[in-house]
Parts: sequence; C-alpha cells; structure tokens
Amino acid sequence: MLMALREVTFDDVCAAGGRIAEHIHRTPVLTSELLDQIAGAHLFFKCENFQKTGSFKIRGATNAVLSLSEEDARHGVVTHSSGNHAAALARAAQRRGIPAWIVMPSNAPAVKKAAVEAYGGQISECEPTLAARESTAQELLRRTGAQMIHPYDNRNVIAGQGTAAMELLEDVADLDFILAPVSGGGLLSGTAIAAKAMNPKIRVIGCEPKNADDAFRSMASGKLEPAAKAQTIADGLRATLCPLTFSILRDRVDQIETVTEDEIVSAMRALWGRLKIVVEPSGAVAAGPALLGRFGAAKCARVGIILSGGNVDLSQLPF
Amino acid sequence: MLMALREVTFDDVCAAGGRIAEHIHRTPVLTSELLDQIAGAHLFFKCENFQKTGSFKIRGATNAVLSLSEEDARHGVVTHSSGNHAAALARAAQRRGIPAWIVMPSNAPAVKKAAVEAYGGQISECEPTLAARESTAQELLRRTGAQMIHPYDNRNVIAGQGTAAMELLEDVADLDFILAPVSGGGLLSGTAIAAKAMNPKIRVIGCEPKNADDAFRSMASGKLEPAAKAQTIADGLRATLCPLTFSILRDRVDQIETVTEDEIVSAMRALWGRLKIVVEPSGAVAAGPALLGRFGAAKCARVGIILSGGNVDLSQLPF
Repeated sequence: MLMALREVTFDDVCAAGGRIAEHIHRTPVLTSELLDQIAGAHLFFKCENFQKTGSFKIRGATNAVLSLSEEDARHGVVTHSSGNHAAALARAAQRRGIPAWIVMPSNAPAVKKAAVEAYGGQISECEPTLAARESTAQELLRRTGAQMIHPYDNRNVIAGQGTAAMELLEDVADLDFILAPVSGGGLLSGTAIAAKAMNPKIRVIGCEPKNADDAFRSMASGKLEPAAKAQTIADGLRATLCPLTFSILRDRVDQIETVTEDEIVSAMRALWGRLKIVVEPSGAVAAGPALLGRFGAAKCARVGIILSGGNVDLSQLPF
Repeated sequence: MLMALREVTFDDVCAAGGRIAEHIHRTPVLTSELLDQIAGAHLFFKCENFQKTGSFKIRGATNAVLSLSEEDARHGVVTHSSGNHAAALARAAQRRGIPAWIVMPSNAPAVKKAAVEAYGGQISECEPTLAARESTAQELLRRTGAQMIHPYDNRNVIAGQGTAAMELLEDVADLDFILAPVSGGGLLSGTAIAAKAMNPKIRVIGCEPKNADDAFRSMASGKLEPAAKAQTIADGLRATLCPLTFSILRDRVDQIETVTEDEIVSAMRALWGRLKIVVEPSGAVAAGPALLGRFGAAKCARVGIILSGGNVDLSQLPF
C-alpha cells in the first residue's frame, strides 16, 4: 500500500537544529579578500571540514539517531557506507549508547575503518559491490532488529543536513547564492529546504563533478538518470540521487554546476593555500564554480559555500 | 650616550590592540577532543595561520607602522626579511599609503617575493648573507630617509605581537600554560608580557627546534649564545635573540622546550589531520611539546598554543 509521505519541511530542520546542538560544532564561516578578488564576488565559506568526525554527515546521522524511539533505538542502527556517513553514524550511536553496525566494502581505506572503530562502530566487511553491501545490511537488520539509517534516503538525515545552511544564513545576511555539493542529494536537499525558507530569493546551486554528473543529467531530463562511471577524485560524490532527494531538488534547486577534475584540484589548492584549511576533494567541489568566476557577473554577489568535509589522506595529495 | 630605554608593558600591548583592530583578523581558537586525548590536557589553539598575510607578523608590523609620526612615516619603511615579516610590513605600509622597501636575499623563494609584491612592497635583492642584508638596508635608509622596522628588535613590533596572546586569554579563561614559538623572540616577548599581566600564575613556555636552540642555550647559560647552524624545516625559526628580547624572556618566560625535526613534522601532520588546518612547520613547533604529552602530568591542564603561521609551499610538503 502506498502512503503519501510527509514532506521534509523547514520546521523539521529547525527541530533538528535544537536536537543536535549539543552534539556538534557550530562551525565558523571564513572569508578571504584574495579569494573574493579571484571570484569577483563576496564568498562566505561554511567550514564543515571542522565539524565533528570531519564532515557535515554527523548532523544528519545524529538527528536520525536521536529521533528514534527508545524502543527502536535499543536494538541499534545499521548502515552501509565507505565514507564519512559511516564514522558519523558510529559516533551518533556511541553518544546515545546504542550499537552501530557499519557495512563497509573490503577495499575501504584502512584510515576510514579506523575512524569507524574509534567511535565504537562494529564493521561488517563485504564484497565491494552495491549488491553485496545491501544484502549484508539486510542480513544484519534481520539478525539484530536494528534500524537502517540510510546516508541520504532518510527524512531525518535530510533535515539534519539542512542545519548547516540554516547556521550559515543565520550568520551571514543577504546571500544571493548558496552552493553545496551534490552526490546522493541529502545535503543539497536539506540546504535547499532551509535556504529557500529563510530567504525565498536566494538561488540554490548544486555542484557536482563532471565525471559523476547524474544530478545534472537528471535535472535536465526531468527523470532519474543512472549513475555515470563516477571516476572522480571527489570520492564522497559518487552516489546517485534517490526518488526522495530528486523530488526535493526538482522543486527547490535552481541549477546544477559541474566542475572538471582539474577544477576540483585547483579549487582545493586555493582553499588550502588561501584559507589555510584542509578540505577534501568532495568538500572543495562547491567552491569550484565560485572560484571560476561564474557568479562574478552579478556585481558584488554574496555567495555562501558549504565546504562539506576535510577527511583526506595527507600522504595521497594531488599536489 | 646611553639612554635608559622604557620597558615594553602590557599597556603597550593594549594600545597596540586598539590601534590594529580594524586592520587584522581576530583569529578563532580551535579545539579537538582527539588532540586533547593525545595530549592528556585541554588544548586551545590560537589560529594565527588564518591571520591576514598568513601569520601573526601583521600584528607587530601594523602596530609599528601606525605608531610612526606623520613626519617619520611619509618617507616610508625598510626591513630585511625573507619571510613572513616581509609581506606583513609591505601590507601594513600599503594600508597607511606609504612606501615599503624590503631587502630580500637573492635566493628567497619566488612565492615569498610574489607575496611582498602583491602588497605593493619594493624588493631590493642582495647576496644571501646577513652582512649584505644589513648593508643593503643601511644604504636604502640613507637614500630614502625611511624608517627601519626590524622584525623583532623593535618595541612597537613586540607590543603588536603580544595582542595574539591577549586575545587568546580574553577568549579562554584560566589557562595554566601558554606556548609560543621562539626565534628572534618578538612573539614570545609579547606573549609573555601580555600573559603574565593578565594571569600572573600562567606558565609561559617558549618552543624551539632542537636544531636552532639558541634561546634554550641562552636561557640556560644566562647570556646571549650564538646561533647554531639552524638547519631546520621550521624556516621561520632560524633567527636569534637580540639583547632586547633576551632581557624580556629572562624576566618572564618560565621554560624553553625543544623539539626534533621528526616531532615538528608529526605535530604538523596532527594539526592538519585533526584540526583540518594548514600550519607551516614553524607554526606547528609550539604544538609539539603539548602533543608529546609534556603537560599531561598536570591533570586536566589547560594549555594555550599560538599557531604562528600557515604559509607553506603546498608542492613541498614533508608528508
């Protein structure tokens, strides 16, 4: 039986903000005169690379875990992720004192497994295919009675991710644009819901690697397009939209901008060199279009940019 | 004729703070649960790597330039430096609308010359020896009637550098220790003056590469010791104390801690990886002793650390 599912609303984002406040950092907003000159615009960088666990993912994971009833929570939570959501969910569960089982592909980097374990997560390894990840997660759910917390196909996760944009708009008045990276669409959905509610005139731009441009193609064709091969240095942006996030993006996102691999590396380098911060490739993607001057035409445009994460292997830098 | 020179006082630091406020960033103080666990203490990082021109040097340079009388200022300023003071003085002079001549050794990195030029500084190249630097500066002073602004042997520079510690102690209550790097001693002098005035019980620790340990040896012997060969990755910490800074340090600094080259790189890596910030090797030196647990013995010690700068060549990283 189909149920009409409730929309995710700005009220949900506000409630998430209150729920997670004591568990996360309110991250700073940085600016740079030199980057403003390069961009021909005023740029405001929301530094989720400084966030607990090193990315915005802790916002949605914490909101989802804290939204579970006592009864649902006591059996723990499950997800499959090789990236930042894995560590975020492990920490969120640890703070609530419940178990977290994280399905990770056998080829996930050791450093990512170590992060999950540091937060008390229990790793279940599987073959590095989506089918194996899903079947391993299903098996865990059956065996444990735990709740699945999907990285983005989850209303509470989306509401939690929206709190980053909410904070940015609270801290910086009169933004003309807000830019966020798009992968599965959880962050961009939450960003769009919060930003359009707080400032209906703001233009919400999703930013995506050209080599993983399913959101760009889906928004252009009006239907969910399949993933490309997704060979991109932005390892956090290889997922694809789901029906839930796609429907939010269609209603509220004005535009998707794509950036090449070279543009990602050069944005990353500009952020490291000028802002003096460590941002992972996926985190730098939303800065790309701004630094390429694509918003300079609007004279003195005020552009908010969500730098989504800072988890990068320092011995594997692209420069 | 010898004059009894006035001491640098906390009033001078306060006056400097008011004078330079609109020209600099009030830099944030960052914390990390994971680094606290490593250190066995509560660490508070004052992020001067985010400061304008990428280091604390803009504080002292701006205070010195703004303290000049109209008459003295109009002929401009001169310094010799291959590092962060060069760019800082160029920017401070540019903001006052006066010329800055910067004597730089012919082998200074192109990126440092470019920074000076970007702020409108006029570079005079010389042979890479201290004698050549000093004679070139003397010649410039004679020819232009400009004022010499030494990187640390200058009371207004020292008072300006003290504003970083003043801000840190304003933002974080009840510090037990404050750590700052020491090279020529300008930053450490200002830090000690501000910190001891605001909290007489605080212990002020200078941090120095073992390979450039003239401050350590001078404090031990009670007289100014000559520089070592200073072969250290911490290229900003190769200068030596002068009589002015040594006299301040003898009165107000409790201890000098030294760190090896490996310890510097590993502190730098911990800051990049955990705090997600770009810190130059010299900037990471003051974090070394804390991350090595040297203050963990004092249970729950609260340790302030001045991260002095973030100007590093991203294509020449030690990891």
